[in-house]
Amino acid sequence: MKFQAHINIMPKAELLDPQGKVVVKNLPNLGLKGVSDVRIGKHVTMELHADSEQEAHDKVELACSKLLANVIMESYDFVVEEV
Amino acid sequence: MKFQAHINIMPKAELLDPQGKVVVKNLPNLGLKGVSDVRIGKHVTMELHADSEQEAHDKVELACSKLLANVIMESYDFVVEEV
Repeated sequence: MKFQAHINIMPKAELLDPQGKVVVKNLPNLGLKGVSDVRIGKHVTMELHADSEQEAHDKVELACSKLLANVIMESYDFVVEEV
Repeated sequence: MKFQAHINIMPKAELLDPQGKVVVKNLPNLGLKGVSDVRIGKHVTMELHADSEQEAHDKVELACSKLLANVIMESYDFVVEEV
């Protein structure tokens, strides 16, 4: 069975996100007012083969915790769907 | 009214994503087999004030096209919700 995972990896809420702060500071220069907070993280799409949805879920969890996310500074969530 | 936008910015499908290719190549070293494709982009959350959902949508569209995404190499989609 083939699955697709959509993973969001974001800087933890209690940490500063300097890249996002720069965006907030510069949007008024584009004539865009009213933006109060921006946080920038990663979005990962992954295609994988697994025997069950549970196995696909476990694989994505492993990939996130061991390789894709820095769990000290980032949190992640994902959804897995069969394709 | 206060809105939150969730924006995904991904490398266009017809372009190589070298960062994703490296992840695919290295996942077997973690004992994780069966992953056939990985693409890595950005996930942005934005809080903003606007008078209507349409205005919020227009603001996020402007921020994406003028600042957040490189529209030559990246495509983006987003959802806006009132909070």
